[in-house]
Amino acid sequence: MTDPRLDSLLLACPGLRLKTDPADLEHYGRDWTRRWTPAPLAIALPGTVEEVQAILRWATAQGVAVVPSGGRTGLSGGAVAAHGELVLSLERMNRPLAFDAVDRTLTVQAGMALEAVHNTALEHGLIYPVDFAARGSCSIGGNIATNAGGIRVIRYGNTREWIAGLKVVTMAGELVELNKGLIKNSSGYDFRQLLIGSEGTLGVIVEATLKLTDPPPASNVMLLALPSFEVLMQVFAAFRERLQLQAFEFFTDRALEHVLAHGAQAPFDEVHPYYVVTEFAAGDGAQEAAAMAAFEDCMEHGWVSDGVVSQSDAQAAQLWRLREGITEAVARYKPYKNDVSVRISAMPAFLAETQALIGQAYPQFEVVWFGHIGDGNLHINVLKPDETADAEFLTQCEHVTKLLAGVLARFDGSISAEHGIGLVKKGYLDSTRSAPEIALMKAVKRAFDPQALLNPGKVFDL
Amino acid sequence: MTDPRLDSLLLACPGLRLKTDPADLEHYGRDWTRRWTPAPLAIALPGTVEEVQAILRWATAQGVAVVPSGGRTGLSGGAVAAHGELVLSLERMNRPLAFDAVDRTLTVQAGMALEAVHNTALEHGLIYPVDFAARGSCSIGGNIATNAGGIRVIRYGNTREWIAGLKVVTMAGELVELNKGLIKNSSGYDFRQLLIGSEGTLGVIVEATLKLTDPPPASNVMLLALPSFEVLMQVFAAFRERLQLQAFEFFTDRALEHVLAHGAQAPFDEVHPYYVVTEFAAGDGAQEAAAMAAFEDCMEHGWVSDGVVSQSDAQAAQLWRLREGITEAVARYKPYKNDVSVRISAMPAFLAETQALIGQAYPQFEVVWFGHIGDGNLHINVLKPDETADAEFLTQCEHVTKLLAGVLARFDGSISAEHGIGLVKKGYLDSTRSAPEIALMKAVKRAFDPQALLNPGKVFDL
Repeated sequence: MTDPRLDSLLLACPGLRLKTDPADLEHYGRDWTRRWTPAPLAIALPGTVEEVQAILRWATAQGVAVVPSGGRTGLSGGAVAAHGELVLSLERMNRPLAFDAVDRTLTVQAGMALEAVHNTALEHGLIYPVDFAARGSCSIGGNIATNAGGIRVIRYGNTREWIAGLKVVTMAGELVELNKGLIKNSSGYDFRQLLIGSEGTLGVIVEATLKLTDPPPASNVMLLALPSFEVLMQVFAAFRERLQLQAFEFFTDRALEHVLAHGAQAPFDEVHPYYVVTEFAAGDGAQEAAAMAAFEDCMEHGWVSDGVVSQSDAQAAQLWRLREGITEAVARYKPYKNDVSVRISAMPAFLAETQALIGQAYPQFEVVWFGHIGDGNLHINVLKPDETADAEFLTQCEHVTKLLAGVLARFDGSISAEHGIGLVKKGYLDSTRSAPEIALMKAVKRAFDPQALLNPGKVFDL
Repeated sequence: MTDPRLDSLLLACPGLRLKTDPADLEHYGRDWTRRWTPAPLAIALPGTVEEVQAILRWATAQGVAVVPSGGRTGLSGGAVAAHGELVLSLERMNRPLAFDAVDRTLTVQAGMALEAVHNTALEHGLIYPVDFAARGSCSIGGNIATNAGGIRVIRYGNTREWIAGLKVVTMAGELVELNKGLIKNSSGYDFRQLLIGSEGTLGVIVEATLKLTDPPPASNVMLLALPSFEVLMQVFAAFRERLQLQAFEFFTDRALEHVLAHGAQAPFDEVHPYYVVTEFAAGDGAQEAAAMAAFEDCMEHGWVSDGVVSQSDAQAAQLWRLREGITEAVARYKPYKNDVSVRISAMPAFLAETQALIGQAYPQFEVVWFGHIGDGNLHINVLKPDETADAEFLTQCEHVTKLLAGVLARFDGSISAEHGIGLVKKGYLDSTRSAPEIALMKAVKRAFDPQALLNPGKVFDL
């Protein structure tokens, strides 16, 4: 407790749990990006909404910058504290607060892990359907702050569609209750929606009321092997036309190799350049017949070379691991990540152009492709060779991202589909949002946070 | 063309269609409310986005207030021009622009009527599912500006969930393209969502890209007669538990009387105090059996006294008319309208308290109740006796609304479920939104419209 400001913080918020050990500063000062050196002032771990309010009132009075912090699984640097900010971690505020069977809502504290939300919903016979691989570590508050997408968007949409209400503390320390769980509410600007995806720059989400829904019928998982990239959208169309898809994910053989090297089991005897994992309702003979018809149609056209359908939950989990294990399997190569989207209709032309661009731009680097193709969302991971210096690697990747941003602008796409802008994509925001839009964003930021103390430097520089 | 400002407008926007006839000023200067005397400066009827931009640039330069105008079917005074504003009518910009079968989106100009949107979607074998009685007159731009709800919210949600992209002209005359039809886009604040429900105060919506979906299976319409108000939520629960409801609407016998007086056919031989019209998937024996089981369950409990199921599309339309004809049937009584919502779980206690309040408060007036009970949305129409003066009637109704707003505040409800705040509910906004929220709304308004020229005085006074 060397910094006198922390004494003043403890006076303003008596009993507040604070961490200042160097190891803690490093741990809480960064997210899954590794580009910035963490250097927070301290870590505040409030246990109540009132403590969050007291912290933000103090920060406003003292002019101290604050970085809201959830599970820090973000990939855009949105939770990085590298400039003496106070990290406000919600990790102790991680409990379910209320379930309502009539409203079919679950109210939780923002620090609750996504997986814990899933489990709590299931205890009540319902599901919270947003899902992705970081479920065990990421927090629901962070999911909301980036409008997290994931592997079920094709069926259930993004986080945005599952938020019935938010409790948010503003930088002035005021608690606002946004929408209060109402289905219909036309009473002025819907700040709930504005806060969703605002990356911690407008307010600190402390509680959320989540919509729940019925569990889907049992589902089958199918893995398809594809001979080329060009047929991907045809395969998607063939399956989407016949089935209610729960997921439709693709990845390349390069991606698979890394997951297999991490201990997963090879799905086919032969190697194929591209793969798709898809999930759809099962149990009903009509659905299975439709899936087989789609598969046979694709085989006949030469769009699919091989396939396997899960025969058990264990096998379904094995097939999913091939896709979900990618991020972890390539993590040791410090990948440079692009997370882009276009409309599905624009995907074939965009894929062709992007593949050509990346092929030319990165002859020297290994590139791993995967993504939620049914949502128009493509992940491009460039792996750093061990012998290339971090700075040199970054420079080369940023050069290509500039080119990619130009392609995206022409296709009316987005430089960030689901990771958020944070620090990582800030320099490319203008490929997706126009100058008047960015000017309006800054004006709205000032309306919420006149001193620009909340997660400063994220999304844009004021 | 007497006002010299109009000459200057025509210089700024050559060829712009303008109307200044007194009859036009009156026609375009008001919506379905009749409380304010229309007094616009003139009516501008642009035919292109560029003309909208030129008008707003001119208005900003000249300091002229502008009221965006769609079908003017609003019930909150949101499109009223009573203080010399320029009305900017989108009625000439009423065409479909693009359909995309892969994206399943329809892009339209903002002045297109909802019914025309429905028909265009159907031509492509898909539906735009938001629906309500004003469909023939209201415009899609106005629907978006109030986040219109209607009769299918229980199944499909509000307008908000069906908007993939918006083109909006700001008061500075800049065209911003919000979200561009993307499924996933985490690139800063989602202004598309902020504009939805902003009642024309932040920007003028000129185009929208709408999501479409598959038509539902053929549906049955069932009319139920209820012996009392108290059983309403039990009937709802019994049906919701067993069926995928497309609609669940209630109305009182008083409401029915007015519709019958307008020429509709009586559904039952006897008179019952309360009715429900509900719609659910049919064609499949299981659904029909489930509906019968729900009906019998309700009969056994004494929650339902009688019922009828549609045997044809014509009969379904007849049953729907009983509910949808109410607004028109009571219009001649210049009804004072409340449009409130609470969470469904709060509905029984709220209904009991509200019924007691209204019963005590209005012994002298006829009150017609109806609403989208499955969304927690209640419409309370107080009919003006011919012999009561407008001003006296309004004073008495406003007094009761004040009491009702107090009840709503305790129940965490909303003073406007779907009509919007406009002018009519402005004085009660603080029952639903807290002082810090309202202060933030005003700050955001200033960020978008620093001179406060766009639909001034609507939602709140700056």
